[in-house]
Order: sequence, then structure tokens, then C-alpha cells
Amino acid sequence: MTERIREFLRNRREDGPCLVVDLDVVRDNYAKFARALPDTRVFYAVKANPAPEVLGLLAKLGSCFDTASVVEMELALAAGATPDRISFGNTIKKERDVVRALELGVRLFAVDCEAEVDKIVRAAEATGSDDVRVFCRILCDGAGAEWPLSRKFGCAPEMAVEVLEHAWRQGLDAYGVSFHVGSQQRDTEAWDQALASAAAIFHDCAERGIRLSMVNLGGGFPTKYLKSVPAVEAYGQSIFQALSRHFGNRIPETIIEPGRGMVGNAGVIEAEVVLVSKKSRDADEIRWVYLDIGKFGGLAETMDESIRYPIRTAHDGGEMAPCVLAGPTCDSADVLYEKTPYDLPVSLSIGDKVFIEGAGAYTTTYAAVAFNGFPPLKSYVI
Amino acid sequence: MTERIREFLRNRREDGPCLVVDLDVVRDNYAKFARALPDTRVFYAVKANPAPEVLGLLAKLGSCFDTASVVEMELALAAGATPDRISFGNTIKKERDVVRALELGVRLFAVDCEAEVDKIVRAAEATGSDDVRVFCRILCDGAGAEWPLSRKFGCAPEMAVEVLEHAWRQGLDAYGVSFHVGSQQRDTEAWDQALASAAAIFHDCAERGIRLSMVNLGGGFPTKYLKSVPAVEAYGQSIFQALSRHFGNRIPETIIEPGRGMVGNAGVIEAEVVLVSKKSRDADEIRWVYLDIGKFGGLAETMDESIRYPIRTAHDGGEMAPCVLAGPTCDSADVLYEKTPYDLPVSLSIGDKVFIEGAGAYTTTYAAVAFNGFPPLKSYVI
Repeated sequence: MTERIREFLRNRREDGPCLVVDLDVVRDNYAKFARALPDTRVFYAVKANPAPEVLGLLAKLGSCFDTASVVEMELALAAGATPDRISFGNTIKKERDVVRALELGVRLFAVDCEAEVDKIVRAAEATGSDDVRVFCRILCDGAGAEWPLSRKFGCAPEMAVEVLEHAWRQGLDAYGVSFHVGSQQRDTEAWDQALASAAAIFHDCAERGIRLSMVNLGGGFPTKYLKSVPAVEAYGQSIFQALSRHFGNRIPETIIEPGRGMVGNAGVIEAEVVLVSKKSRDADEIRWVYLDIGKFGGLAETMDESIRYPIRTAHDGGEMAPCVLAGPTCDSADVLYEKTPYDLPVSLSIGDKVFIEGAGAYTTTYAAVAFNGFPPLKSYVI
Repeated sequence: MTERIREFLRNRREDGPCLVVDLDVVRDNYAKFARALPDTRVFYAVKANPAPEVLGLLAKLGSCFDTASVVEMELALAAGATPDRISFGNTIKKERDVVRALELGVRLFAVDCEAEVDKIVRAAEATGSDDVRVFCRILCDGAGAEWPLSRKFGCAPEMAVEVLEHAWRQGLDAYGVSFHVGSQQRDTEAWDQALASAAAIFHDCAERGIRLSMVNLGGGFPTKYLKSVPAVEAYGQSIFQALSRHFGNRIPETIIEPGRGMVGNAGVIEAEVVLVSKKSRDADEIRWVYLDIGKFGGLAETMDESIRYPIRTAHDGGEMAPCVLAGPTCDSADVLYEKTPYDLPVSLSIGDKVFIEGAGAYTTTYAAVAFNGFPPLKSYVI
């Protein structure tokens, strides 16, 4: 919670939960990434928070943009990014969206199979686009990450060599390799194994006459929730050491795709306690606290209780007790923390405000459009 | 899939997934509920699908409406319902929303604790509202339901007696008891135990001089997904028998709140295969099929793979093989079926249309507002 956010909320008059993002924190985060990884280009993961003010600031600071869809590309362009600073990082693309991306001038694409390469080849032909670069995403186990990483994106490293050769044979620029170590990754060493795989792919491709240029180190950089996390500098050092270990003195061009790490700690959600109650008269019965925001109103990342947000109240410092924390909808699944109850002040009452910290990433756009008639999360960028 | 939906989709030209709801099916479902439970009033659970055309049809047919928020009340009123046909069924309400509901003329409220009763008492005083009815929701274990029912709503039956007495002592009409046996409830006997509890509460209240009038039997009525489900008639018989068993010849007024059972089978989502791929060259490697709709685009109820939708394709009848089915976003959690893979035709290819049946409930409004830049699910009611 920054003083600017506190001041903004003090003057706010509207009803309902809202997110407030402080651009000073985003600016500071960008500077930290740039310092920690000085030879690495930053591609901000637009999906984390696509607010125009956030994109505009980052464009001005020199950031590039990792986009998941044509809409996100258009947002980045509108914010002042040039197309050479935009990647289409989604491995699952409609061919007509690849065409649209090429028409917008975007030339950097993620793939993880030959079918996806073929779409890009056809789209490049259809649009007469040259110098189209593809990087192949490889699977990564995601150990140490707090947000589950499935096998959804990427292919086995052996297959990546074939995918890249397939692209190269058809006239695309086989540009490099990408991976993702898992979101909210708390282990600074998590990049080591994936970089070993990447180096092996560089080697195997070279043997086939294909010179790769780039390693996309993905995202995964954490933001502080309840537990403390290593500083960006520690990630930078660990990554640089792993790059040296596996690539020797031929370190490739690198990019990172921070999303959560760039905007997570810049945002605070103000919400309201709607109800505090118990389910029975039993003295041991746990208290339920219901907020006016829940899993469908922006806190989707509480799914499986993965992300535990810090929650501040005006009663902090007083006696604390565990509670089950839930959202306001009539959906029984709209419970935030139950398996591991959440400690909140005993004196917390109906109508009190609560401040959910670290909420700058993956909240506004995750919100349901109108579930139970509740509007999506309001957002203010200051 | 009805002929009307098939015809509509044949002529559709827009890009992107969409839901099409056939009002004839909704009309038919309403008639079945009315026949199966002739002495029970239907309160349609607006949250299942608040499309104005659906609400308008049901209002015309004589349905009442169970609403979760003031916005849903306004939708029901706009569709032609009078306020005496609307309940505020959410046990988690802001006091200012209770005030608003009373101002709109709504007089029937769900509660599950004394703090919620107190809000209604104060709001009734503030608005000068008479004849305000409350029913107390009790906990129910939800065994047999496919969508998980948490302890989020309701209180222990012993406590319900005190909550109702508390309401009565403060001048509210202690109107009855409600419960919910769990959504997509496939056991027609699931109402029995809850009705035994309800009858005990009627008895205990009567001993305190409070005459309850109504049992709200909740929702839970299933729609057909992959597995077949009992007919509404079977539920009606089982519920009537349980009512007779526990209330003898003094059967109370009853209401039901079908949502999924009213609109689920009326809707079909048309989606597109964006990618079919494998993660390695291993012959045993499972196929991944990626659609242009996923967990954040309307299929939120695939959470924990709870709801398994029937999916039709133009290749049905040919050889089938299991696949992992996933959505189009860059979120690793956007996977529909993986723990239990889904059988789809081997010849299913990129660009093919798929038809997701039983998608009329809990899809459109669950969709994220703009996650990854993807727009919310389009909806057509025909």
C-alpha cells in the first residue's frame, strides 16, 4: 500500500470493490528488471494487466510487449509500442489472427508444434511478410512455482529441434527457444535446468546448420504476497550464472516476460466486509467472513487457494483469529480460503473496508463479465 | 442440439465462440417443472442465465425469480415480473442493497444468521416496509451433487430456529426454511434428509409460537451432460413423498429454484478447434486439442473437471481417441479435461467446429471480461 493509493482511496466515493494501481511502483519495478538483467530485453506480459496507463508507461520506458491475442497487440500499439517490440507469445493461434498480427507488423511468434509453424508459413505467404521469426517453447516442470504450471504449453526438447528445423526449411527465421518456469516462482535456480535444455537445442540445431539467436526466459518472477520472495537481483544473478554455465562465452540474446513481477505489488484492491457469521452456536465453530469481491470478481487466482494475498484492515494490531474467507456470489465455489483458514482481526465487522495487497496482476481482466449480476472489478491507475 | 439452433448456426457469419439458446426448450422445461411439482411455485435462478429473452419468456409463463443481486432484480422487473414474484435469495447482502430491494417492492429474503436479519430489520424501518418475509437457509451436505457444495450458505438447523425467532421478535414474517441439495444433483432422494430437518424446524418454531409457512426446496435439478439424469417427474414424486413423510397432511407452501434444470439443455456453444498437437514424438503421447473457448471464456464449470459437457463434431461416428482438451488463453490453468481425458474423433482438425451441448446455464455471465484480450462469450437467444 503506497501513500498515493491510500490518498486516492481516502477520496473515493463510489460503491463496490476496486483496484488501484500506482504507476510509480511499476516504474520502479521496470528499473529493477533492467538493472538486474542489463543485457536482457523486457517483454511485459500484457495479460497481467493491460490497463492503457500501464502499457503507456512501459512503452515510454522502453519495454517490449508479450501478447496473447490480437486485442492485446492493438492495446500495446495504441500505448505507443512499435510492432518490432511486440511478440505473439501464445502457442495457440488462429491462422487468421497470425495474418492480422503480420498485417500489424508483428514479426515474432511462439510455436510448440509443426502445425503452428505451418499456420505462420501460410500467413506469411498470404501477407507477403519477410523476416518472420519463430521461437519454440519447450516443456518445463514448474517445480517451485505457486501457480500450477500444466503441460499445456511447450513440447519435449527433442521435438523442439525438429519444429525449429521445420520452420527453417520453410523460410522462417528459426530464432530461438522459450520456456516458462512457472508463475510466482520462488526458486531463483529454477531457470538452470531449462537453460541446459535450451543450450542442447542450440547445439543440435547448429549441427543441422541452423543458428539460433535467442532464449526467451519467460516470466515467473514473483511478487510479494504473504510470504517474502527473493529480490529481482537474486534472479538476475542466478540466471546469468546459468547462462554462463550452459552457453559459455557465447551467451545468446535473451528476453524475459515479467507480468506479475512487474505489476503485482503496484495494485491494491479495496473491498468491503459484507457479512461476518458462524454456522452454529458451537464455541469452536470457525467464523466466516464474506467480502464484496470473490473468485468471480477478480480473485480467480485464489483457485485451489494458490495465491494467498496479504489483507490489511483498520483493526490490524489487535487480536487475530482464523476465518473462512468467501466472496459475495451465490456460487458455493466462490470461497477464497477455507482449507487453510485466513487470520483476520477478531474485531473485523460488517461494513469495514479491507485492503488486498499485491493485486495488480491477474485481477481486472479475470473478473467475470456479470456473474450473479455483479459488475466486473473497477480499476484506477494513478 | 435442436433443429432451430442448427439452422441458426448454419447462417451465422461472425468469428469466435457463441452460445445459442432455444426458447422452445426453456418453455418445455418450465412446463415439465410445473407438471412434476404442481403445488410448488417456480423461482427461476436468474444467475443461471439472465438473458432478457429467457427472463421475458419465463415471466410470461408465470415463473417467479430467485435473484442474487439488485442487478438481477432489475433484470427480472424489466422482463415483466412483479416484485411479489421476486426473492432476494443471496444470504450475503449489503444493507444498502436490502434497502434498494425493498424500494423495488421485493419482500422475500434469504438469511442464515442474525446479523443478516438485523440488516433487513433496519432496512425495513428505513424504508417503512411492511410484510417483510425471511426464510432461513440451513446447511445440507450435498452428497450426490456434481458441482461441489461448500458450507458457504446456511446454518445448522438448531441455529435456524433461533435466527427465525430473532426475525419474528423484531417484527419480520418468519416465513420458512430453505436448503440446497447441491447443483446437478443426480440423486432424486437427496431432498429427504433436508426435509426432515425442515420439518423439525417447523415443529420447534411452532413450540415457540412461530408458525412457519414455506419450504424453499432450492435448486439442484440436473441437466443432461454426458451421463443421463433422472426425469423431472422422478424428482417431483420423490420430493412429494418426502414432504408427506415429514409433514404428514400439513404440507407447507413450497417453492423450487431451478436454474441449470431450466436452461442448461436449451443452449449449445459453437466453438472452433484452434490447434491439435502432441508434446513429443512418443507414439503413446496423448493428443492435445485446443478450442477457442476455455475456462475463462465461459466454461468455468469445468473447474476440477466437475461438469463434463457433451461435445459433438462433424466427425462423430468415426474412430475416437482420448485427448486433453484445453482453452485458448496463455494461462496454464485453462485446461478443461486432463485428469480424465476426453474422447474425440481422431480426424478432428484445426478449423473444425465443435458443438458443446448443455451449455445454457452458468456460461455467459461466468466469462471473464477480457482475459488475455479475449472478449466475453457472445450469446444469441432464439
